[in-house]
Amino acid sequence: MTQVFNFSAGPAVLPSEVLRQVQAELLDWHGSGMSVMEMSHRGIEFGQILSEAEADLRALMAIPDNYKVLFLQGGAMLQFSMLPLNFAQTDSTIDFVHTGHWSKGAIAEAKRYAKVNIVASSEDKNFSYVPEESTWQRTPDAAYLHYCSNETIGGVEFNHIPQSDGVPLICDMSSNILSRPIDVSQFAVIYAGAQKNIGPSGVALSIVREDMLGKARSDIPTLMNYKTFADNGSMYNTPPTFGIYVAGLVFKWLLKNGGLAVMEQKNIAKANVLYSAIDASNGFYHCPVALANRSRMNIPFTLADSNLDKEFLAGAEARHLLQLKGHRSVGGMRASIYNAMPLEGCQALAAYMNEFAKTKG
Amino acid sequence: MTQVFNFSAGPAVLPSEVLRQVQAELLDWHGSGMSVMEMSHRGIEFGQILSEAEADLRALMAIPDNYKVLFLQGGAMLQFSMLPLNFAQTDSTIDFVHTGHWSKGAIAEAKRYAKVNIVASSEDKNFSYVPEESTWQRTPDAAYLHYCSNETIGGVEFNHIPQSDGVPLICDMSSNILSRPIDVSQFAVIYAGAQKNIGPSGVALSIVREDMLGKARSDIPTLMNYKTFADNGSMYNTPPTFGIYVAGLVFKWLLKNGGLAVMEQKNIAKANVLYSAIDASNGFYHCPVALANRSRMNIPFTLADSNLDKEFLAGAEARHLLQLKGHRSVGGMRASIYNAMPLEGCQALAAYMNEFAKTKG
Repeated sequence: MTQVFNFSAGPAVLPSEVLRQVQAELLDWHGSGMSVMEMSHRGIEFGQILSEAEADLRALMAIPDNYKVLFLQGGAMLQFSMLPLNFAQTDSTIDFVHTGHWSKGAIAEAKRYAKVNIVASSEDKNFSYVPEESTWQRTPDAAYLHYCSNETIGGVEFNHIPQSDGVPLICDMSSNILSRPIDVSQFAVIYAGAQKNIGPSGVALSIVREDMLGKARSDIPTLMNYKTFADNGSMYNTPPTFGIYVAGLVFKWLLKNGGLAVMEQKNIAKANVLYSAIDASNGFYHCPVALANRSRMNIPFTLADSNLDKEFLAGAEARHLLQLKGHRSVGGMRASIYNAMPLEGCQALAAYMNEFAKTKG
Repeated sequence: MTQVFNFSAGPAVLPSEVLRQVQAELLDWHGSGMSVMEMSHRGIEFGQILSEAEADLRALMAIPDNYKVLFLQGGAMLQFSMLPLNFAQTDSTIDFVHTGHWSKGAIAEAKRYAKVNIVASSEDKNFSYVPEESTWQRTPDAAYLHYCSNETIGGVEFNHIPQSDGVPLICDMSSNILSRPIDVSQFAVIYAGAQKNIGPSGVALSIVREDMLGKARSDIPTLMNYKTFADNGSMYNTPPTFGIYVAGLVFKWLLKNGGLAVMEQKNIAKANVLYSAIDASNGFYHCPVALANRSRMNIPFTLADSNLDKEFLAGAEARHLLQLKGHRSVGGMRASIYNAMPLEGCQALAAYMNEFAKTKG
């Protein structure tokens, strides 16, 4: 098969070792005679898969015992509605940091169910930075404070966890979860769609501190109440079994490869390769993001001469460097380099970028 | 690998031909160098997978042009909430036929959002039959009439489509969709979880007549509004791409094997093998369901002497006849024989049942 490097923003590259294992046991999981896709979710086989996935994730992220680990459906976006319906009342205020596209989505949905206060926004500079925390206009009794730790489209990443001062802190970590160690105990809720660093799309993850549960509005749909999932071990209804299985293999792959501290070092090294190529290009390439908030996961860049965009993409494609086109809302290019992207992929892209700049610059 | 016959009620057996194809192209879909799990949902590759899946399903079920085909998440159960929020107001009445466990679930959730009228119930005989349509106490201006065409746990199947007399007819077809031809034009909405006859869990399907769209309550979560999915080709957010891919292969397998009319004949033959074994056992085995409503998909049966249950199950397991234990709410055994169960599986089970009855009877 062709060796490609896939820079898709999500669904995205998965560890090739994991995919080979999925392939090897696709028809017959551990001698059961069944594919994981064919197993009853109530059977002992899937029970083992689910409990190992949870235990491995707890080990990876050092999740304290007073947090529930929930496997959901509907992506992070369904949780844009679930969060206010579970954790805010109509007349309470939710504080949001507005750093781009995904913050905006969460804000828009929250506004339909509660009052919203934007504590700070980076819209003034096209969402290219994280507003300085000391400038945030916080609501003292906010229902919660919400931020998106990595804006997948803008390529803006928080390099620290905000001080929440007793207000429940909720974070959309869809595109940088598992990319570095984080202190879970500082959060009330962490949530993420799977399709970047966890596994295939169709699974969403939520890590919820237990004291947050049981306060949902009375009219909330049963399957939008986090408590429904918490009380039933994510099995109130049939979970996305195959996706959870693949996610579980990704967790094992991370543990085997040294866990999140090692992964962080690799991710820093990978991102440096690309940012160096951009910064050394004498303006041929440009990354619009403030230095301190450059994402390690999603690296957007533009060519000074956008007339060359098509040629750049075609040349990349010819070298099997795939899915580099930037999001339509910002244009240019975007290289998404999640955990499963090897250093070699970043080096191959940087080499191509250098070569292209030399030829066309 | 061990050849097993998997009678799980869902997630359930998939066509072995489909699973082998999934395995063959797991690392590299059609020379793309990517697994389907790694593809951007906005890329041309997945675009092709999704549009072929929809086109093939339309061909299989002869879905008229004025119906939208939607791929959702959350299973059929999330739709228990979505249906009243999309198609009924607080003060309108929804008519339900109550034939068992899954009817009950839909009714309970609907009661939270609208008035509910049970037009008929078979609770008097432990949900072992479909109440005669002439006895139904209908609401003339009901928001819709809902029924479950096959009760997976009770093994009770409708053998006809009810007359709706102008009231929108909504059907939960989770466990018998694609098992026989049906006239889609008689329905306002057909919905189903994938994990029986369609594909892996984590995908749900909805077939919605266009005039039903756009009437949802204003406070409905964006991702619970069918219109959101209809307006965005099931891609408002990232869909469960891999599950849709497998479902698409199942659709192609059905088309290749003659479509739903052929499948229906096979399903009748398969069910007959098992019902014959039960009926010929002189009461050693018993199926509680009324003759006219015996399901072709889920065949529950009890042993006259329930002390033999464990031994029966152990013997079945030893012969690689798996997942035959009945649902805890009804006990006994249940053989689920969806489209992908070959006739040989039913014959092997019937042979074992005969042998067991001869030895123990």
